[in-house]
Amino acid sequence: MTVREVIAAHPRPTSLDRDVLLRCIDECFDCAATCTSCADACLGEPDVAELVRCVRLCLDCADACDTTGRIVTRQTEPDLGVVRAVVEACATTCRVCGDECERHAAHHEHCRISAEVCRRCERACNELLAAIG
Amino acid sequence: MTVREVIAAHPRPTSLDRDVLLRCIDECFDCAATCTSCADACLGEPDVAELVRCVRLCLDCADACDTTGRIVTRQTEPDLGVVRAVVEACATTCRVCGDECERHAAHHEHCRISAEVCRRCERACNELLAAIG
Amino acid sequence: MTVREVIAAHPRPTSLDRDVLLRCIDECFDCAATCTSCADACLGEPDVAELVRCVRLCLDCADACDTTGRIVTRQTEPDLGVVRAVVEACATTCRVCGDECERHAAHHEHCRISAEVCRRCERACNELLAAIG
Amino acid sequence: MTVREVIAAHPRPTSLDRDVLLRCIDECFDCAATCTSCADACLGEPDVAELVRCVRLCLDCADACDTTGRIVTRQTEPDLGVVRAVVEACATTCRVCGDECERHAAHHEHCRISAEVCRRCERACNELLAAIG
Repeated sequence: MTVREVIAAHPRPTSLDRDVLLRCIDECFDCAATCTSCADACLGEPDVAELVRCVRLCLDCADACDTTGRIVTRQTEPDLGVVRAVVEACATTCRVCGDECERHAAHHEHCRISAEVCRRCERACNELLAAIG
Repeated sequence: MTVREVIAAHPRPTSLDRDVLLRCIDECFDCAATCTSCADACLGEPDVAELVRCVRLCLDCADACDTTGRIVTRQTEPDLGVVRAVVEACATTCRVCGDECERHAAHHEHCRISAEVCRRCERACNELLAAIG
Repeated sequence: MTVREVIAAHPRPTSLDRDVLLRCIDECFDCAATCTSCADACLGEPDVAELVRCVRLCLDCADACDTTGRIVTRQTEPDLGVVRAVVEACATTCRVCGDECERHAAHHEHCRISAEVCRRCERACNELLAAIG
Repeated sequence: MTVREVIAAHPRPTSLDRDVLLRCIDECFDCAATCTSCADACLGEPDVAELVRCVRLCLDCADACDTTGRIVTRQTEPDLGVVRAVVEACATTCRVCGDECERHAAHHEHCRISAEVCRRCERACNELLAAIG
């Protein structure tokens, strides 16, 4: 994503490990889009009534990942307590949403993909948390 | 807000204390709008260079409150672990943003108002956390 | 909403009619929350399969109203061409979503409320468009 | 982005040209992240007072692109009138924001990158509008 180039040109980048930070940003925005799309695909399935919890958690996950992506992207005057709290909440949301998507992975390819992206995003969040300390 | 009436008509409301839940929703959406507006008012001040941290934290707070307001609004099949993590992150963000706004309250009326709204939202989040247990 | 007080304290307010502007902001944020809640209430109904179009349009309307509320709230250095285009898109989204909600108003009280809020928001957007000229 | 794979697995994809649709989705989400980052980089510059209009329009553009990306991603029961209005508003916002970023491109590499991404997103929006007809 082009956001990597903008951060490379930032006048006051944070002191956080650059690779870990950029991976978290990438995964958050990818997971936000993927969960928006999985909620919508579930809504289009004939068995939508069986997928209600999946839709709901994908909507939550899309919102949490989008907000986390924005906050982690910002380099100017960050508050690490805020970053930590928000990234922790994102990791929790991705874990729970990934578990739910996985329950439908055998029947719905979009849920299988979404589960995988949630796992990747959860991992990237946890790596950033480790880097923050 | 009209969202109260929609939740009153919801087919499967959560078991959370209704008053505490609705107050948290109201305060999150009010704080999201107020912080969006305070970030913008700071940007219009002649001393914007002194307000950079305030702008940044107001943008973070607007995003966190908007996402939290959406997630807490949803009543269908909630995951309380997700709700708790997201509301905790919101309370932290409101506390830090409120502290920063307060530092400028004597010079900028919009920061004074914003600080107050952040405090109210932090309190409403903490009350919901107590209700979740 | 407290955003009214922040805008009253803004150092560089736009020249747009204040009452019309504030009504549009209020209605956009109210409609965003209401449509988030109606999408979720529809998802919890036993006849969710009949409400798929309503869920989808409520998600669209919540996103459009939230973004429009943010953009109209900002007073510093606005571009009226951007404001006009975004408010026009919001009015269209509210009209289409309001029509769909109305189709379910007799069976679902939350859809009846949501239809009404969409109408109010559409009207407030059109009044702001008339004020922009 | 992974959203392409989810849409490939969607049970009821829209009839819109797939390549044009996916390019619009990609560019909207890329532009949303890039403008979030450019607004923040401008905020960190010593000459932030000269960049106020750029920050403001980047915030508008990030919000508009994010909402447009979400709405265009949804394939289930779309309303083409809503899609058209929202994509038009996004193209306008990208054009105006791209013009402003370009004014600072010689002094700030992040503005140069952002201007380019806004142009690409504007183009992708216009191609989708042509496909909708």
